[in-house]
Amino acid sequence: MRPLCFAGLLLAASLAARADEGMWLFNKPPVRQVKEKHGFEITPEWLEHLQKSSVRFGNGGSGSFVSAQGLILTNHHVGAGMIEKLSTPERDLLKDGFHAKEPGEELKCPDLELNVLMGIEDVTDRVNAAVKAGQSAEEAAAARRAVIAAIEKESLDATGLRSDVVTLFQGGAYHLYRYQRYTDVRLVFAPDAQAAAFGGDPDNFEFPRHCLDYAFFRAYENGAPAKTPHFLKWKSAGAEEGELVFTSGHPGRTNRSVTFAQLQSIRDEGFPQRLEQLYRSEALHRAWSDRDPENARRAKGAIVGIQNGRKAIQARLNGLLDPQLMKHQAEEESRLRAAFRAKEEWREADAAFDRIARAEAEERSFSTRLRMLEGAEGFATGLFGIARTLLRAAEEAGKPDGQRLRGYQESSRVSLELDLFSDEPVYKDLEALRLENSLTVLCAKLGADDPAVVAILDGKSPRERAAALIDGTRLDEVATRRKLYEGGKEAVLASDDPMIALARKIDAEARELRAKAEVLDEGIAQAHRQITLARYALEGDSIYPDATFSLRLSFGVVKGYHDRVEVPAMTSFRSMDERHRKQGGIPPFDLSEVWQQRAGGLDPKTPLNFVSTNDITGGNSGSPVVNRQGELVGLIFDTNAPGLVSDFAYTEAQGRAVSVHPAAIVESMRVIYRAERVLAELGL
Amino acid sequence: MRPLCFAGLLLAASLAARADEGMWLFNKPPVRQVKEKHGFEITPEWLEHLQKSSVRFGNGGSGSFVSAQGLILTNHHVGAGMIEKLSTPERDLLKDGFHAKEPGEELKCPDLELNVLMGIEDVTDRVNAAVKAGQSAEEAAAARRAVIAAIEKESLDATGLRSDVVTLFQGGAYHLYRYQRYTDVRLVFAPDAQAAAFGGDPDNFEFPRHCLDYAFFRAYENGAPAKTPHFLKWKSAGAEEGELVFTSGHPGRTNRSVTFAQLQSIRDEGFPQRLEQLYRSEALHRAWSDRDPENARRAKGAIVGIQNGRKAIQARLNGLLDPQLMKHQAEEESRLRAAFRAKEEWREADAAFDRIARAEAEERSFSTRLRMLEGAEGFATGLFGIARTLLRAAEEAGKPDGQRLRGYQESSRVSLELDLFSDEPVYKDLEALRLENSLTVLCAKLGADDPAVVAILDGKSPRERAAALIDGTRLDEVATRRKLYEGGKEAVLASDDPMIALARKIDAEARELRAKAEVLDEGIAQAHRQITLARYALEGDSIYPDATFSLRLSFGVVKGYHDRVEVPAMTSFRSMDERHRKQGGIPPFDLSEVWQQRAGGLDPKTPLNFVSTNDITGGNSGSPVVNRQGELVGLIFDTNAPGLVSDFAYTEAQGRAVSVHPAAIVESMRVIYRAERVLAELGL
Repeated sequence: MRPLCFAGLLLAASLAARADEGMWLFNKPPVRQVKEKHGFEITPEWLEHLQKSSVRFGNGGSGSFVSAQGLILTNHHVGAGMIEKLSTPERDLLKDGFHAKEPGEELKCPDLELNVLMGIEDVTDRVNAAVKAGQSAEEAAAARRAVIAAIEKESLDATGLRSDVVTLFQGGAYHLYRYQRYTDVRLVFAPDAQAAAFGGDPDNFEFPRHCLDYAFFRAYENGAPAKTPHFLKWKSAGAEEGELVFTSGHPGRTNRSVTFAQLQSIRDEGFPQRLEQLYRSEALHRAWSDRDPENARRAKGAIVGIQNGRKAIQARLNGLLDPQLMKHQAEEESRLRAAFRAKEEWREADAAFDRIARAEAEERSFSTRLRMLEGAEGFATGLFGIARTLLRAAEEAGKPDGQRLRGYQESSRVSLELDLFSDEPVYKDLEALRLENSLTVLCAKLGADDPAVVAILDGKSPRERAAALIDGTRLDEVATRRKLYEGGKEAVLASDDPMIALARKIDAEARELRAKAEVLDEGIAQAHRQITLARYALEGDSIYPDATFSLRLSFGVVKGYHDRVEVPAMTSFRSMDERHRKQGGIPPFDLSEVWQQRAGGLDPKTPLNFVSTNDITGGNSGSPVVNRQGELVGLIFDTNAPGLVSDFAYTEAQGRAVSVHPAAIVESMRVIYRAERVLAELGL
Repeated sequence: MRPLCFAGLLLAASLAARADEGMWLFNKPPVRQVKEKHGFEITPEWLEHLQKSSVRFGNGGSGSFVSAQGLILTNHHVGAGMIEKLSTPERDLLKDGFHAKEPGEELKCPDLELNVLMGIEDVTDRVNAAVKAGQSAEEAAAARRAVIAAIEKESLDATGLRSDVVTLFQGGAYHLYRYQRYTDVRLVFAPDAQAAAFGGDPDNFEFPRHCLDYAFFRAYENGAPAKTPHFLKWKSAGAEEGELVFTSGHPGRTNRSVTFAQLQSIRDEGFPQRLEQLYRSEALHRAWSDRDPENARRAKGAIVGIQNGRKAIQARLNGLLDPQLMKHQAEEESRLRAAFRAKEEWREADAAFDRIARAEAEERSFSTRLRMLEGAEGFATGLFGIARTLLRAAEEAGKPDGQRLRGYQESSRVSLELDLFSDEPVYKDLEALRLENSLTVLCAKLGADDPAVVAILDGKSPRERAAALIDGTRLDEVATRRKLYEGGKEAVLASDDPMIALARKIDAEARELRAKAEVLDEGIAQAHRQITLARYALEGDSIYPDATFSLRLSFGVVKGYHDRVEVPAMTSFRSMDERHRKQGGIPPFDLSEVWQQRAGGLDPKTPLNFVSTNDITGGNSGSPVVNRQGELVGLIFDTNAPGLVSDFAYTEAQGRAVSVHPAAIVESMRVIYRAERVLAELGL
């Protein structure tokens, strides 16, 4: 499982939580449900400790503090992007793993931001009050954007904390989240990728599973390890089968409350288009990777990410293409709408479904163009992203904060600059490949005779144009970016960098498309707000909002399942060894040299991975699993295939969260990697 | 390069051949051109000997007789499909290679048909006479189909030879080709695939190149080696740089005379759609292959074919996306049309361009549906192909021969049955994967709520439906197919095989779409006929028709080229060894065990691959290269990347045909494989 990569899904026609379902807000925890079902009382103190021990990874994952000196446990695959950026042709940290034997050897990540949630404030009334009756969708969207920017700015100025207004329940509520922010984050320990991702793409989303998918980072403040009084106590024994466990993490996005019409769009357009892009990208990157070993090193992380997305979306799409499931969803929506129609005050909520369907249809009429030009799928290189960020930052700076594009407000400045000035390596040959490919897609999608396409290609073939842009740009140099950024609008408009020139050339149309989509999205959000308020009234308080990459609590039990055969809840080093042998030890079932030398010393009975019924999704990767005592008893890293439909409907028949067992982390660090310093810091 | 896999291309606005251009008919050879340019006189005897030594491989390639006992030289990649079919989990002939040390050990291919051209007859007048003035396009198409079937049937009955009417010049001419047919073909020798396809996908279509892409088969008649008095004499010394050489083979398809409107369709629709399918298929097959070593063995051939197609079409598409090239093509067409308009009798030829554009536009309006249902892209498993063949064979059998669908006439019966009753292995797990994937594509392309899609899915998701169809069908058993085939319409209509039931369910709409397309195609063919006749008149006799997988002669010289650096005409075992070392010896630059043991004995100076200016395309794979004396001096196996635009325009600036040198074949068989029996038969 990868952090945050899904395009979106679905209607759980009733939002009321059943079974172990739910990604609960920390300011609205499932106290009653856990008490009733599992006889455990969630206290405010218990919750606060878990909250402040939880860490959000800005690149789309989760983690937790495991020492008072800022030591953080997360997944290897959450950290893999950083580990790759810290690698060089001579030092391949993905392949070899990494261990800072001394504090001074910890490696600083080029552009990683961590957030720790310090508090939540409900600002729904203030946001809604800013929108006046009778405003057009365009005016309403602008007013809402302005008041949200103002709230964030005030909070940042007052507290110094990162302040984000989170839209919940599709606009049914707005909460202000304040985060402690860490931008100096260092790599402490990572196993080799063969062990971390044992079984690779074939075993991804499968269970039984055998991955040492863990890594340790450390938060720093003022050049020294951060002081983190809230951290999780390590419990190597883990949890028993049947035991109640919680996860605290940042599920990226679910779509359990979209309407049937939106579901059809996702099924017929959103997912197929995303899959087309992923299949293409996978074949392309693998072919390039095959050309030589250094290419392979450079493309490895990208390929893993692409394969993960492909497998996840394919499984979800197959779910949506199940006519029985869709029939059920249609019936549930009909039932809900009938209930709405039965009461005069909910009539508008019923009509809202039709408004959403119309807005969806309108958006589909230009969605390809929107994706290509504003979504930049037609120029899929990070270097174009940099060019556009420079152009827009320069242009937006001249506007009042509340009128700027999202991401360019004062409250976003620190994160924007962290990204923009990252010194992560840029491989121009790989970027040229990606750009050529995406220009070719652009031609196919809009037609090679389209005026925008003609302007973009500038009289060249995609191959020549990509080569000219990538060879010509200097945006791969951080100093160039900084100079343009500091030079402001004048410098950016005068720049003869070809990538900047390209961004200038298409920005008018791209912004126009974006504005058009935002107006439609505001209409959809307003309609969802009406539906959600009617649901509140109809279904009481036992509901939770769709995931929004904000902190959520889920609960469940450690439990195997039946899938033709009985699948036990846990694997072990013994079953890992069996799988390795059965697959002939060839990649991705191979083991590194250090494993081959030392694996004989491992206790084969050590539990390795386990499954539980917790409700999670992408973004939860790296979440701690804790017991009633708040001790760390596991590390979320995946969902099994039957659980992937959780994007649009939770299921505990076969769907499971998959975790690394703490005993396996300790045993591997002790026997294989000999990472004594980390073990000592964990108190082991 | 693979045989025959391209969707189609373009206007060489003037058909007049220049330079070493041309895929010439054997009954209209380039006698004058070769005499003028190279001072060599092509005689009828020289030509007949070459013609009757040339072999067409029914699966889309070429070859030649190299002994009087039916021994045939072709490419390993032309034979790879057969070599794979003859393999088992215990005997991987692709991996290990094959050598029949005794005559009795030669392995019979399950479904390979070879053809040797015995004669050509011009039947243009008879075909055209069958179409009456004032007939609709539909009536004209039917009349033409009927007369062609009659000609073929008469010829088959009279001579016993396979008889095909070939449409040349887009309908400007019709020639009857009579072939000696061999259906008992046996594998004699194949090197291991590592040597045959050294460099794999990364080096495919590149030069310098280092492939031992050769294999030997033998034609049998009545259970004994066929007597083949016409065969090519082997010349290990090959040809000198600068020497005149000829190829005699079966180029599959070129599109040098399509109109600009057709070119736009290919650029914006045909190629992008085909590429989308290939990228998807590549990622899918590779992911499946990675799951375990036996999967890898089963999918290897398919992956090579897919990668080959992807690379070829991508290069061609990039050519069509070059705005300069398209501008040139548009100008050439304008020039030609202006010349047509200048003469009253050619006015209709000018108007024909617009008629083609309108027909293209109409065909595009339903082309996706056509591809999915009639092209069976929505059910991409060989088992569906078998089901449909059984259904249609049963239905067509009840009609007069001339009214049947193409491929179901009496003249096609032998080939149809050879395919239908092939005992090639069917891997149900791989077929289920392919079917699930294509059903998913079907949903995306037509929409999951489309009535045909709803009927096809039958209330299941693509995954479930694919599993049910593949698990349920018995068409993987040859005996089942034979029983249904022999049972005729009654048996097929009564069959409860789920794949047959699926074929029945969609056949009405599929046939309707096909009929609609055929009427449009007839209109396009008529328009092209008018254009071609006007061109004849305008440009004289120095023209050759687009490739049609019928025998063609091309000429050229052995010659290097300049591509940033000077690329020499030949490689050697020494440069192969250098490439192997430079790439670290990892796949696809690895060498088999027998190579590692014995390669030290090879003479490193031995020429390995070479390039020449001959005009070839897919389908020419396996073509002999001969010198003025008609001796075999090379074996075509590829085109370099700059040569791939030859689909729509020949270029000899950098475009080259790539061949295996006969010295490398002999040296590898002697030193590495010790294939003394084959060498002796070659007289070496």
